[in-house]
Amino acid sequence: MNREEIKRLLEDIKNEKISLEEGISEIENLPYKDIGYALVDNHRELRVGYPEVIYCAGKTVEQVVGIVEYMLKKECNILATRADEKIYDAVLNLCSDAKYNKHGRIITIKRKEIDIPNSFIAVVTAGTSDIPVAEEAAATAEFFGNKVERIFDVGVAGIHRLFGKLEIIKNAKVVVVVAGMEGALASVVAGLIDKPVIAVPTSVGYGANFGGLSALLTMLNSCSSGVSVVNIDNGFGAGYLASMINKL
Amino acid sequence: MNREEIKRLLEDIKNEKISLEEGISEIENLPYKDIGYALVDNHRELRVGYPEVIYCAGKTVEQVVGIVEYMLKKECNILATRADEKIYDAVLNLCSDAKYNKHGRIITIKRKEIDIPNSFIAVVTAGTSDIPVAEEAAATAEFFGNKVERIFDVGVAGIHRLFGKLEIIKNAKVVVVVAGMEGALASVVAGLIDKPVIAVPTSVGYGANFGGLSALLTMLNSCSSGVSVVNIDNGFGAGYLASMINKL
Amino acid sequence: MNREEIKRLLEDIKNEKISLEEGISEIENLPYKDIGYALVDNHRELRVGYPEVIYCAGKTVEQVVGIVEYMLKKECNILATRADEKIYDAVLNLCSDAKYNKHGRIITIKRKEIDIPNSFIAVVTAGTSDIPVAEEAAATAEFFGNKVERIFDVGVAGIHRLFGKLEIIKNAKVVVVVAGMEGALASVVAGLIDKPVIAVPTSVGYGANFGGLSALLTMLNSCSSGVSVVNIDNGFGAGYLASMINKL
Amino acid sequence: MNREEIKRLLEDIKNEKISLEEGISEIENLPYKDIGYALVDNHRELRVGYPEVIYCAGKTVEQVVGIVEYMLKKECNILATRADEKIYDAVLNLCSDAKYNKHGRIITIKRKEIDIPNSFIAVVTAGTSDIPVAEEAAATAEFFGNKVERIFDVGVAGIHRLFGKLEIIKNAKVVVVVAGMEGALASVVAGLIDKPVIAVPTSVGYGANFGGLSALLTMLNSCSSGVSVVNIDNGFGAGYLASMINKL
Amino acid sequence: MNREEIKRLLEDIKNEKISLEEGISEIENLPYKDIGYALVDNHRELRVGYPEVIYCAGKTVEQVVGIVEYMLKKECNILATRADEKIYDAVLNLCSDAKYNKHGRIITIKRKEIDIPNSFIAVVTAGTSDIPVAEEAAATAEFFGNKVERIFDVGVAGIHRLFGKLEIIKNAKVVVVVAGMEGALASVVAGLIDKPVIAVPTSVGYGANFGGLSALLTMLNSCSSGVSVVNIDNGFGAGYLASMINKL
Amino acid sequence: MNREEIKRLLEDIKNEKISLEEGISEIENLPYKDIGYALVDNHRELRVGYPEVIYCAGKTVEQVVGIVEYMLKKECNILATRADEKIYDAVLNLCSDAKYNKHGRIITIKRKEIDIPNSFIAVVTAGTSDIPVAEEAAATAEFFGNKVERIFDVGVAGIHRLFGKLEIIKNAKVVVVVAGMEGALASVVAGLIDKPVIAVPTSVGYGANFGGLSALLTMLNSCSSGVSVVNIDNGFGAGYLASMINKL
Amino acid sequence: MNREEIKRLLEDIKNEKISLEEGISEIENLPYKDIGYALVDNHRELRVGYPEVIYCAGKTVEQVVGIVEYMLKKECNILATRADEKIYDAVLNLCSDAKYNKHGRIITIKRKEIDIPNSFIAVVTAGTSDIPVAEEAAATAEFFGNKVERIFDVGVAGIHRLFGKLEIIKNAKVVVVVAGMEGALASVVAGLIDKPVIAVPTSVGYGANFGGLSALLTMLNSCSSGVSVVNIDNGFGAGYLASMINKL
Amino acid sequence: MNREEIKRLLEDIKNEKISLEEGISEIENLPYKDIGYALVDNHRELRVGYPEVIYCAGKTVEQVVGIVEYMLKKECNILATRADEKIYDAVLNLCSDAKYNKHGRIITIKRKEIDIPNSFIAVVTAGTSDIPVAEEAAATAEFFGNKVERIFDVGVAGIHRLFGKLEIIKNAKVVVVVAGMEGALASVVAGLIDKPVIAVPTSVGYGANFGGLSALLTMLNSCSSGVSVVNIDNGFGAGYLASMINKL
Repeated sequence: MNREEIKRLLEDIKNEKISLEEGISEIENLPYKDIGYALVDNHRELRVGYPEVIYCAGKTVEQVVGIVEYMLKKECNILATRADEKIYDAVLNLCSDAKYNKHGRIITIKRKEIDIPNSFIAVVTAGTSDIPVAEEAAATAEFFGNKVERIFDVGVAGIHRLFGKLEIIKNAKVVVVVAGMEGALASVVAGLIDKPVIAVPTSVGYGANFGGLSALLTMLNSCSSGVSVVNIDNGFGAGYLASMINKL
Repeated sequence: MNREEIKRLLEDIKNEKISLEEGISEIENLPYKDIGYALVDNHRELRVGYPEVIYCAGKTVEQVVGIVEYMLKKECNILATRADEKIYDAVLNLCSDAKYNKHGRIITIKRKEIDIPNSFIAVVTAGTSDIPVAEEAAATAEFFGNKVERIFDVGVAGIHRLFGKLEIIKNAKVVVVVAGMEGALASVVAGLIDKPVIAVPTSVGYGANFGGLSALLTMLNSCSSGVSVVNIDNGFGAGYLASMINKL
Repeated sequence: MNREEIKRLLEDIKNEKISLEEGISEIENLPYKDIGYALVDNHRELRVGYPEVIYCAGKTVEQVVGIVEYMLKKECNILATRADEKIYDAVLNLCSDAKYNKHGRIITIKRKEIDIPNSFIAVVTAGTSDIPVAEEAAATAEFFGNKVERIFDVGVAGIHRLFGKLEIIKNAKVVVVVAGMEGALASVVAGLIDKPVIAVPTSVGYGANFGGLSALLTMLNSCSSGVSVVNIDNGFGAGYLASMINKL
Repeated sequence: MNREEIKRLLEDIKNEKISLEEGISEIENLPYKDIGYALVDNHRELRVGYPEVIYCAGKTVEQVVGIVEYMLKKECNILATRADEKIYDAVLNLCSDAKYNKHGRIITIKRKEIDIPNSFIAVVTAGTSDIPVAEEAAATAEFFGNKVERIFDVGVAGIHRLFGKLEIIKNAKVVVVVAGMEGALASVVAGLIDKPVIAVPTSVGYGANFGGLSALLTMLNSCSSGVSVVNIDNGFGAGYLASMINKL
Repeated sequence: MNREEIKRLLEDIKNEKISLEEGISEIENLPYKDIGYALVDNHRELRVGYPEVIYCAGKTVEQVVGIVEYMLKKECNILATRADEKIYDAVLNLCSDAKYNKHGRIITIKRKEIDIPNSFIAVVTAGTSDIPVAEEAAATAEFFGNKVERIFDVGVAGIHRLFGKLEIIKNAKVVVVVAGMEGALASVVAGLIDKPVIAVPTSVGYGANFGGLSALLTMLNSCSSGVSVVNIDNGFGAGYLASMINKL
Repeated sequence: MNREEIKRLLEDIKNEKISLEEGISEIENLPYKDIGYALVDNHRELRVGYPEVIYCAGKTVEQVVGIVEYMLKKECNILATRADEKIYDAVLNLCSDAKYNKHGRIITIKRKEIDIPNSFIAVVTAGTSDIPVAEEAAATAEFFGNKVERIFDVGVAGIHRLFGKLEIIKNAKVVVVVAGMEGALASVVAGLIDKPVIAVPTSVGYGANFGGLSALLTMLNSCSSGVSVVNIDNGFGAGYLASMINKL
Repeated sequence: MNREEIKRLLEDIKNEKISLEEGISEIENLPYKDIGYALVDNHRELRVGYPEVIYCAGKTVEQVVGIVEYMLKKECNILATRADEKIYDAVLNLCSDAKYNKHGRIITIKRKEIDIPNSFIAVVTAGTSDIPVAEEAAATAEFFGNKVERIFDVGVAGIHRLFGKLEIIKNAKVVVVVAGMEGALASVVAGLIDKPVIAVPTSVGYGANFGGLSALLTMLNSCSSGVSVVNIDNGFGAGYLASMINKL
Repeated sequence: MNREEIKRLLEDIKNEKISLEEGISEIENLPYKDIGYALVDNHRELRVGYPEVIYCAGKTVEQVVGIVEYMLKKECNILATRADEKIYDAVLNLCSDAKYNKHGRIITIKRKEIDIPNSFIAVVTAGTSDIPVAEEAAATAEFFGNKVERIFDVGVAGIHRLFGKLEIIKNAKVVVVVAGMEGALASVVAGLIDKPVIAVPTSVGYGANFGGLSALLTMLNSCSSGVSVVNIDNGFGAGYLASMINKL
């Protein structure tokens, strides 16, 4: 509620356009719905421009279904991440047009159209094993209304593969680079283009990758500028941020 | 045994109110029961104000049952934490009024009433996935004779939800804040109220949360004052300490 | 601003007790002072019960002096932590009755009296080398209006020293335990008393103490209940929280 | 060199517009200057849209001076980061209009004008001690041709200060959040606005902040979406990326 | 082969007591048996006073059986650690008098008597959950010919239990202290007795115990003298070393 | 494409030996095959002297089969690492002469002969449990055309076993040392021979081996010269590098 | 105070051999001296067989002097570790026969003779840079009345140097092995002898030795049995424990 | 001493070519010189092909001088690493033709010629700040008799610089890649050439580079084959190993 709105509200009270009780209620009526185990954030789309997203890990099937059920009533688009097939089956029961991106473990339900800008997001992976995280990023960005180019398996072990795809990458408005093991691809890409690079370290690898720590540190210490980093395996976060930038 | 008690004991011996042998035995008779794999601490309630608690993780079903069996004879209230359903079934066999909090994995058996103060404890979570740990805290505090308000899913991603619940939180005598991922909620709450905040980092999250390390460090480095921290996922410890403070 | 205050404010506007402009200003007039490099939180004492505290590390002498200068005008008590002697000299120039606790690196300026409860806080250390951190805790608690008992050098290498002081510790309302190296003292104390223990790990030690990590982990994993932990060497945080609990 | 350029080059060779030797040289003539201890990347501005930047840490004064000397001949704008006063003095000798941002440890030399977009970047800090890193970010962004709003000391310990500044922050095109200790501010800000947040953890704090690790992990695990992270204390990287996004 | 033996051998060759070929063979004939996937160290008992021990983790059942089979021929006592029941069944097939300590996961086969000193080893645990590691230590020490006193569940949460058992512990020649969580027991015991304490950190606990790291660091940083540490959960190593010291 | 090749290509274009389109295509025709989820690097053998290798971990059976299928058409030798039996079965379906090294989890398909140098590689392990990693190294080296000597179970607990095998090790051109736990063997071997030692830390062990970290750090800090290290459990990398050196 | 002593005391009171007040005082009269910043443990020698030791790090010169002064009155032998020259000078002022071991940073004052057993302790180092820690161990052991053999610079890079000294090492009753970098020496020595090995990791080295972590982990994971470990650079602890074992 | 040598020695003894005492002495006369604080390894060149090297860190000036003095008598070439100018001055006093590489902190003294192979070693750095470590590697390799090509500042932020130098790198027999920050260069180089790559992580960088850990992990997790890694900042180790490989 900004200054203008406060002013208008107070004037309305003063002018008795609305009752004192209504004024109090207006201020008290905070924009979320309490469903016991969750406070669904209805206000979110207004506030940050994106609808609430359901992070399924650590929630029971019943909890996810309950949240979806409530959101369906509000007729908003729904995105659920880290959803396994059991959750998808339960959601499907509730809503027959729910879609499931198996690689990216993402459920989407579409209720209203979103504008799609002409510019596109490039989602690039170092290897084939990084694809699930990349799919989470790509599917998230698509859900929020973006065109996405997928460019997979162009890691630095055979860097000529990257150069073969460089023109596409250069034309993107923002680039998501997904890489495990040593995660060097983000630095190399950022050194070759003039667009923001969102680096997603993955837990792909073994031994001294320490569950993705190696790629994470690589990306944080990038000697190329224009790189920022999200959590290990956080395809969703990268897709969300890429969408935000692509729509600027 | 404090100074007065020593004096009285020695006087009794001198005055032959009790025999020398009884005196020795009194001093020797240390307040625990040896049942082979455990020394049950009978004296605990006297010493620290709370009965012994059974931590089930790493114990066999037989061992837990043996300890419960012994404690039942002493007619004390019993609390067993980190108890899975197999353990509960075995305890139920022994004592048909044992209760089980499934989310919090806590078994309780009640044998005597406890005074409950008028003040209450607020147990607050950042997300829905933090509820199991919060339940462990809440159920522990209730077991020890406290009123508890549960306020779930008010994390900083939608901070207006917290403000909607702030009045309740402010009225608590002590607040338990349970949060995973980046664990920022503890700092935010502590910056808004004038009561002690017990912060419980949870292992909720993935990647660079390193099993709860991220939330743990966040809470330890809180720029708000009045925050102290217990172990990752240690709902029991937080509930116990909250009870201690609530009863001051 | 709580519900009652909103109601009163709106009624005042409606009843034209205050003008519309005054009403807007009231809401806008946020309770801090912008002095360029800092937003001094005037409102803090009202909100959390304690005045703003100046953390000197990382601030220039000029910045600290500027903040003190502003706060002096408000006639509030002032506490500055992690202050070296250079800062103290500069503050002394400004205000001749500023006091300096050299061990605890704390500057205090007193402008109004505070009520002191009858109960006291025990500040306990494992060794002599832990005294600076303990002094930070004790001086902080005293500044906020508490009686403090200092019990130094009772670490577990000679545990009979602890037992010699146990009666005093048991009579405290809350106990701060300060320990470096293996930090075992917090568990031992908490196992012997029925009061909250605030554990402060210190960086005292060398090698595999990893700058206080060893004592920190020890305290977080305490098998005794009733222990919570603050940051390594965070005497201030412990003293502040102890004061909060002592005043409940 | 893209497809069109290759085609044109080959046609020119075929048509003997340019000699075979010239063609070879064209391909060989790679766009950097070898000055012994450094290969200055002349081509960088063309390739990634920004001139080469000099990272002074670990370079001798002579090496920095040598690189500046060469770049001055090319008449490009020059930015040197992590520069201490000794380096600045040496650069000043070479070029009397070199400017020095003391807090941000940045040297700038301006030789050509850059377009400045109407939108602006907000640089926000949690505390006063975070200002040096914030200045590095702000000065970097200004060097690359951006308007910057500085909003300092609005950390979550007194969150009302943040709300007092929220309107400015909301109007920025991209927000840089600089925070040490627990680094919670990034999540809180990102939960309140609909713009990309670039989070910069700082090494401000002590003990279990482990040189900035606590804030880093906090930011990587943000439960708010739209946050990405750069290296600890990497104000330059944040300013560079913010500029890139602000100019999209 | 020491100086005296070399001298004798050379004299024998010189005096033609033994042939040149025999001399060469004597030197070449190294004291191990190559069975393909293992070089069984026959010479070990001679060299370090203890027979070779089979560490089963990471070996296939076939490999363990093969090694046991070979050792049986040599009529030596056999100890296999970290053996699951599948391995035990296979060994039992081979040798019907093989014994299995289920808690300690240890298989023993006895072929010759060992002298047992009068002094004894105390194996002490902090909790019931530490018993498996303690059993590994106790069973190892017994295998090598030692008397062992088991004192379980005397952790610092109820330190009077330790004092109740202190007389037994004091009479041991060497004490093994097994503790998880914060592992404080080792320091406390070492502060009370004048015998070597071998501390075994266990992985018992959760969260910030980081798989036993907390207890490990506690024990390494012990402020009590006379404590040394073996690997996390390394009951075998402690039992072996305790035997070595007990037999001095 | 080196200088000579560029020259020749340009001359051919100039002399109209090849058409302009062919010239463009030549340059464009980058040496990899896009099969959707992977860009198979055909060019690799030419560039780095070794054919592409398939790392199976994190790939679906279908993806591995697809890559093998494509490579079979190119008639090249195929090596697939970290392959479980399910993958092997699928590959066997495709190609009946695929071989499987069960210990080393390696699939090999041979289509053309490779020269084998006279010199050999020694693959040495500290224990029996290190054999799987050693087999991965040995099988990799053999696949690339090398003679390998396997010397297993010569760890420092019985160092005379190493001396018994030292002559063989000394005669190798390069030595791979595979060791878990404390990984001391690499230093000891390197101190005794004059050939490069490639050290492979393994995750064999428990507790404070932290998944191979102990052996990794040991090997990186070797006081013996001539040692370099590959990732934990990276038998493939060691075998590959050993082959490279053996063929110099 | 053991059972017998309690009995005697109680009998004495009963028989009025001692007065009631004397009895109380006897029990109250705890065996330490409170000198403000330290509780000097007079009782220590009785309890654990060794006099109190002064750890100087983190203590002011005044504090160390105060403790020494008090102990001098008790006529006991005094050992102060981690003492720099400034502390030594101050102690020398107090007591002209104080000795200083500069390498080991140890001050000793001798007031009464101690029995020295015939057996000896071997203190072995891997390199020359490990000597200061080894000296701390050796000087500590000598202070407590032991013969010590110093064997320096026999690390595994040139293992024949170790074999040259092996006979001496084998004759020791207990061996202290001091090593930095990869710390492999402890395992190698323990594999060759039948005596307890106390391993002291040192911080000697750089990079991935992480301040001694590499040697620490090596030693904890020793594949040789009979090894236990003390803190990084803890020569004192090793010397103390070695003395304890040597005197068994 | 190999089989043949043993045979010959024994025959000589048998045939009385040498006396019994001489035979014993031959075996006893181990190939090192004991100078108190160091056992100089004379035998090293014979055994591993390279003379002993003096690691100066942690040694006193006197100790280094003493070792040099002894080695000068043996007329061998001398290499001292990590030598500061104070050490160099002291060595220069002893031997006026000692050379000092200031960047690489290396002292060399040449007494006999070494064969230099025709092939060369490439030493490549990512940035200018990595030069000191690279110089240590290059100077070491040159000392041992190798031609070295230095290629500095070709990091991935401007990867075209690498391509400009690729032909030289490809012609080397072995390549040393020195890189700090994210250390990606090693992977990129190894993906482009068919020679062994020795990767040296440096501590260049700040924040989440954790003293070189980021580059170390990057290099260990390289997705390119043919890479092995030495310790952080270990230029010496890389130069030594490169020499070993270059001379195969």
